[in-house]
Amino acid sequence: MLKNMDELVNHCKHRGFIFQGSEIYGGLANTWDYGPLGVELKRNLKNAWWKKFVQESPYNVGLDAAILMNPKTWEASGHLGNFNDPMIDCKDCKSRYRADKLIEEKLSEKGDEVVVDGLPFEEMEKMIQEHGITCPECGSSNFTEIRQFNLMFKTYQGVTEDSSSEIYLRPETAQGIFVNFKNVQRTMRKKLPFGIAQIGKSFRNEITPGNFIFRTREFEQMEMEFFCRPGTEKEWFEYWLDFCHNWLKSLGLKDENIRRREHGEDELSHYSNFTTDLEYKFPFGWGELWGIASRTDYDLSRHAEYSGEDFEYIDQQNNNERYVPYVIEPALGADRLALAFLVDAYDEEKLEDGSTRTVMRFHPAVAPYQAAVFPLSKKLSEQAQEVFADLSKEFNVDYDESGSIGKRYRRHDEIGTPFCITYDFDSLEDQQVTVRDRDTMEQKRMPIAELKNFLKEKTKY
Amino acid sequence: MLKNMDELVNHCKHRGFIFQGSEIYGGLANTWDYGPLGVELKRNLKNAWWKKFVQESPYNVGLDAAILMNPKTWEASGHLGNFNDPMIDCKDCKSRYRADKLIEEKLSEKGDEVVVDGLPFEEMEKMIQEHGITCPECGSSNFTEIRQFNLMFKTYQGVTEDSSSEIYLRPETAQGIFVNFKNVQRTMRKKLPFGIAQIGKSFRNEITPGNFIFRTREFEQMEMEFFCRPGTEKEWFEYWLDFCHNWLKSLGLKDENIRRREHGEDELSHYSNFTTDLEYKFPFGWGELWGIASRTDYDLSRHAEYSGEDFEYIDQQNNNERYVPYVIEPALGADRLALAFLVDAYDEEKLEDGSTRTVMRFHPAVAPYQAAVFPLSKKLSEQAQEVFADLSKEFNVDYDESGSIGKRYRRHDEIGTPFCITYDFDSLEDQQVTVRDRDTMEQKRMPIAELKNFLKEKTKY
Repeated sequence: MLKNMDELVNHCKHRGFIFQGSEIYGGLANTWDYGPLGVELKRNLKNAWWKKFVQESPYNVGLDAAILMNPKTWEASGHLGNFNDPMIDCKDCKSRYRADKLIEEKLSEKGDEVVVDGLPFEEMEKMIQEHGITCPECGSSNFTEIRQFNLMFKTYQGVTEDSSSEIYLRPETAQGIFVNFKNVQRTMRKKLPFGIAQIGKSFRNEITPGNFIFRTREFEQMEMEFFCRPGTEKEWFEYWLDFCHNWLKSLGLKDENIRRREHGEDELSHYSNFTTDLEYKFPFGWGELWGIASRTDYDLSRHAEYSGEDFEYIDQQNNNERYVPYVIEPALGADRLALAFLVDAYDEEKLEDGSTRTVMRFHPAVAPYQAAVFPLSKKLSEQAQEVFADLSKEFNVDYDESGSIGKRYRRHDEIGTPFCITYDFDSLEDQQVTVRDRDTMEQKRMPIAELKNFLKEKTKY
Repeated sequence: MLKNMDELVNHCKHRGFIFQGSEIYGGLANTWDYGPLGVELKRNLKNAWWKKFVQESPYNVGLDAAILMNPKTWEASGHLGNFNDPMIDCKDCKSRYRADKLIEEKLSEKGDEVVVDGLPFEEMEKMIQEHGITCPECGSSNFTEIRQFNLMFKTYQGVTEDSSSEIYLRPETAQGIFVNFKNVQRTMRKKLPFGIAQIGKSFRNEITPGNFIFRTREFEQMEMEFFCRPGTEKEWFEYWLDFCHNWLKSLGLKDENIRRREHGEDELSHYSNFTTDLEYKFPFGWGELWGIASRTDYDLSRHAEYSGEDFEYIDQQNNNERYVPYVIEPALGADRLALAFLVDAYDEEKLEDGSTRTVMRFHPAVAPYQAAVFPLSKKLSEQAQEVFADLSKEFNVDYDESGSIGKRYRRHDEIGTPFCITYDFDSLEDQQVTVRDRDTMEQKRMPIAELKNFLKEKTKY
C-alpha cells in the first residue's frame, strides 16, 4: 500500500514517529531520532522480544554488556583484522570511494551487473584499469592503490590520545555475550543448552548507509547466542528459525512479506556452517531482517585462544564429555524491525464517502497507544480523565480532547491506535463508553469496568 | 548493613548481577557488564521510571534521540567550550594529571582540605609553585602549563579522519531533547506545561571515574525536560522534586538514606537559578543520585541562537503571550540508581540457629525475579514447570530444581527473590502450593489459581 519510502519517512516525521537527527542543525548524515510515538513502537517491539526470548523462555537469560570493550576482544573476534571495506582515493581531486561500489556502479551504467564485493584488491584494481573507470568527481584515472577501511568507530579513553588508549565502539553486541559466557554459566548455574540474550546499541562506520532506518551507523541490536552441544546445532538452528519466524507472525507481520533465504556456500561467513536470513519485503526490495546463523565454536574458541580462558563445558548429562559449545545466533536489528512494522502497518483506505483515510494497522500489542480516551465535550473532561488515569496504569493510552470526534478518529487512525474510547453524557448515567475499532470502524457500547479486560485480551500475542 | 563497597562488588560478581567489563582480557578500566540478574534489576527500574514519568503522566511524552549528534549541538550547549578538566604533564617522566586533584591530594596529605576545582589555571599553577608540589611518579617539579582537557569522547564519522568528520559521543541525553522541542511540540500538539522524557547511554571521558557503577565513563541516563511558562518554574520545580523523591520511596528506598541538598550560589551552574540534588547515602558517603535543576530558558535560547530556529511558544491560554519556555530538569543516572537499590537492599541477618543469611530486600517490583518456582522433587518437574510457564507470562520468574528446598531459599534470599513457590506432592491433590516470604520467612498454603493476583498486588508501587 506504501508507494515508496519517502511517503513513509514523511508520515513518520509529521506524525511524531521518527525525526531526522539534529534536524535544526541540518542533520547529521544518517542519524534519526525516535519521537514520542516511535519510541513507544520500538519499546513495544523490544519488550515483546525480551518477553518471549528471556522472560518466558525456560532456556535463556539476559545480559547488558558495555559498549566499550577491551580492544583485544576485536582482535579475537576478527573485527580488527577483517571488518573492512576497500577504499580508493583520486590523487587529483582527493575524492574518496568505496572501490567495489565504484566499479559496480560504473559497470552497471554500461549494463553489466557484477558483484565485486569480496574480490581481492588486485582483481579490483585490474577491473578499474581494464574498464577505464575514472573518478566520478573530476574524471581523472590517477587513483591510489586500494586500501582497507575498518568499519569500527575509534575513540580514545583516558587522558592521552595514543595507541594505548585507543578503543572502539562495539560493532555488534554478540562479543559482549561471548566474553561473559563463563560468568553467566557459572553464576546462573546453567546447563547446556541455554541462551544469553541482549539488547543494545552498536556502531558501524558504514560507507554507504541508507534507506531511512534500514542501515544506520548507530543502531540497536537484539541478539541471542544459544549455546548447545556440538552435533545438535542443526536441530537448534531449525528450532530458533521457526521460533523467530513465528514471533514475527504472532505480532501481526504479514507472512507474505516474510521469506527465508538460505546462504549459499560462497556467501557463508567463514565461521558459519549454515545461515538463513528472514527477509522482509521493504519498498526498496527484500532486505535482511533477522540473520539466524550457526556459528560453530568459532567465537568461544577464538576468545579462549586470545585470553587463555578455558571455555570448555563439562557435560554431566553426557558422561562428563568436554567440549567448547556450539552456537546458534538469531541476530535482529531493532530499527530494521521497527521499519518492517511501519511498512507493514501503513495503509490507505478508500471510504464509502469517497474520501481516503491513512491507517496504521499495528497489532494492538505493538501500537504506540493501545487506546485513546476522548471526552465528547470538554464538560466531561474530569470523568474522561479518570478513565485515562485508570487505564494508563496498565496500558499506554492517549487522552485527546481537541476537535470533533471524527477528527480525533482520523488522527488516531494515522498513528495506529486500535481502540478509541468516547465518554459521553450517557456515560454519566450508565457507566458505559463507546469503543470504536480502528480497522472495522465499528462502534459498540461497553461498561467502563470491562475496558481493562478487553484491552488485555486484545493485546495478547 | 553493608561493610564496604568491596563486599557489594563481590556479591554482585558472584551472584550474577554485575561483572567487570571485558574481564577475560583483564578488563577495560571502569567498564561493567550487567549479568542476568543485574539486567533485570536495571530493566525494572527503567520501566518503573517510564511508567510513572511517561505512561501514567498526563503531561509527558517520550523520546529516543541518537547518541551521535551534529557537533554544532555541543557548540550551542557549551560542551565544546566549557566541558573541561585542567590537565598537567610532568615533562620528565611524561605522567599526566588532573591539576586540581593533584593539588588537592598533595595539600590534603599535609592536612589542608581545600577545594581547587573551578579556580583559574594561573591560581592553580601558583599553588603548585608555592606549595612545592612535585610529580608523584618521579618527584620532578618540571611541569608543563595547565591545559584544558575536554571530557567528550571524540570519533570520526565517514571515511576521512579530519576535522570535518569529527563527531562526539553525547555527554548527556538532555540536548537530544532540546533540539527536538519543536518537533515534539508540533507533532504531538502539546500545550505547555509538558515534559519530554528519555532513557539512553551517555559518555564522559572522566579522569577520575570510580566507586563501582557510581561514576563510569559509559553510563545510562534517565532525563526529563519539563517545559513551562517563565514565572511558574519554582512551582514546577517543587512539584518534580517531590514527585522524584516520592517515586524513590514508593519503590522501597529507605527515606533515611535519602536527603535533599540545595546548591549554594557559588555552586550553581551558570544557566540555573536553583538546583537541588536528591542524594543517597552510599557506603563511601552521600552522593548525588538525582539532580533537579531549574535551567531557565538557557538551552532553548542557545539553540535558537546557534541554529536560527525559532523556539518561541505562543501561549493561547495567556493572551497569545510569546516566550521561550523555562525548563525544569530532573536528571537521574540509571546505573547510580541501580547501585543505590543494591546498597539499600543488602542485608545480613542473624538467624535463630546462629547462622547468618545474606538477603537482598528489594521491593518485589524491583527484584530481578518476582518469584521462583520449585518442585519439591524432580518427579514433580512437569507440574512445577506448568506453574512457571503460566506465571512467566506476566512476571519474571525463576525455575529452580537443584538442591534442597532450604538451599534454594538461601540462594533466592541472596538475589532478593521475594516469593518462593514450592510445588509438592499434596499440590497434585489440592492444587495448592507453599509460598514462602523472603523477609519474614513465613510459609503459607495458597491455591495455584490465586498466585497471579497475589503477585500483582505485591508488585504494585
